[in-house]
Amino acid sequence: MTKERLTLVKVGGKVVETPASLHLLLQRFSALEGRKVLVHGGGRTATLVAEQLGVETHMIDGRRVTDADMLRIVTMVYGGLVNKNLVAALQQCGVNALGLTGADMHVIRSHRRPPKNGVDYGYVGDVDTVDAERLSRLIESGITPVMAPLTYDGQGALLNTNADTIAGETAKALAQYYDVTLVYCFEHAGVLADPARPDSVIPHITSATFTQLKADGVVAGGMIPKIENSLQAVAAGVGRVVITRAEALGSDGGTRIE
Amino acid sequence: MTKERLTLVKVGGKVVETPASLHLLLQRFSALEGRKVLVHGGGRTATLVAEQLGVETHMIDGRRVTDADMLRIVTMVYGGLVNKNLVAALQQCGVNALGLTGADMHVIRSHRRPPKNGVDYGYVGDVDTVDAERLSRLIESGITPVMAPLTYDGQGALLNTNADTIAGETAKALAQYYDVTLVYCFEHAGVLADPARPDSVIPHITSATFTQLKADGVVAGGMIPKIENSLQAVAAGVGRVVITRAEALGSDGGTRIE
Repeated sequence: MTKERLTLVKVGGKVVETPASLHLLLQRFSALEGRKVLVHGGGRTATLVAEQLGVETHMIDGRRVTDADMLRIVTMVYGGLVNKNLVAALQQCGVNALGLTGADMHVIRSHRRPPKNGVDYGYVGDVDTVDAERLSRLIESGITPVMAPLTYDGQGALLNTNADTIAGETAKALAQYYDVTLVYCFEHAGVLADPARPDSVIPHITSATFTQLKADGVVAGGMIPKIENSLQAVAAGVGRVVITRAEALGSDGGTRIE
Repeated sequence: MTKERLTLVKVGGKVVETPASLHLLLQRFSALEGRKVLVHGGGRTATLVAEQLGVETHMIDGRRVTDADMLRIVTMVYGGLVNKNLVAALQQCGVNALGLTGADMHVIRSHRRPPKNGVDYGYVGDVDTVDAERLSRLIESGITPVMAPLTYDGQGALLNTNADTIAGETAKALAQYYDVTLVYCFEHAGVLADPARPDSVIPHITSATFTQLKADGVVAGGMIPKIENSLQAVAAGVGRVVITRAEALGSDGGTRIE
């Protein structure tokens, strides 16, 4: 049986927090045909609200350290402000959106990350399971889930969870039911062969060409784990991963990893 | 055909914002048999967060004036902080909760209240319609909706809406599908015949006895519109309205209006 297509789009805080890029994202996302899911970040707003509330932001390797005060803030910002405004804006575009954290209908269970090498991220969760069956039932009833980067520990607490991870894990779980395209919206048009040339997008990466690209030093730094995670998602059943700009959603642009 | 019973409980900010009373509410609510819905407030936390953010709170006749800054705050507090923490806490009690604003799945459509007698409440919405069909489908799939006091204007914006009103309108809409008991949790054990005597709860009010209670001056002030709204809900199909303490949920205590 051929599976229905589903597009899962992950957008970072930068895209949803700037009115002009948000507007474009909403247009592009709502024009996408077929079943879809949106996963969003919101870190910049969380940092801003924390600052206004006199709570200091600590980051380690780009990840937010989440103490009780910061958990309160990300619950307000990710689960409330960013999520609900996205839902309302999508409704206006004709998308029947439903905002979710992992606690809602228990869709994403996680466990608190244990301290490692003296680093304690606090209330940060690593994903254990995504309830794809529940999500697919919603999707089949015409709903577009809009997922905030908060998960549920099974013991009454929310945990702050990286939005890229939520997107990847949700895509893998949904791959059981759908032919999934996972789109990571990015600040460039795709993975660049030459960072100085915005038009040097590598159109296609497979695990074979990735080995070569790494050996040649074309792909380096923070792009390596991103592509590794994408290849892992493909190995786990996701049809393809596309890294592109929010503006290019729905076009054939970007880097296709499969 | 006999309709299934459904209990819709409205709790104010006071109950959900105090750990001890919240704990009791969660116990009582999760022990309620059958289908159920929770509607919550959160005004005290909104006022506190507003203060911390340097935003002044203006109230007119007990209603919050909601400018753009205050809408941001209530979206964070009602839609995020209060709603998602309730959802997580209910999950721990074995209740498969789903947090909703009116924008989520477009369940509550409202319109912005026009200024009247020189009073402009700002981004405050009066309810037009509740999508009881969508809610009942969720409920029949084992979900307990947890509703924040935010509605959707049909044009991309959230509106701040009184939680009592959301409870009443949702109860009326659901009465089409269920035998609904609407419970307003209150600071007293029920409507008191003598405010000085906490044990003087009037067990039963109908529209006939209400006329007498008013004529005798037993019921006065703010209780009059509360009971009028309850009688209206009953006239519109709600099985009964119970005014009681959160601690008495599930017992036969309180004032029963029918």
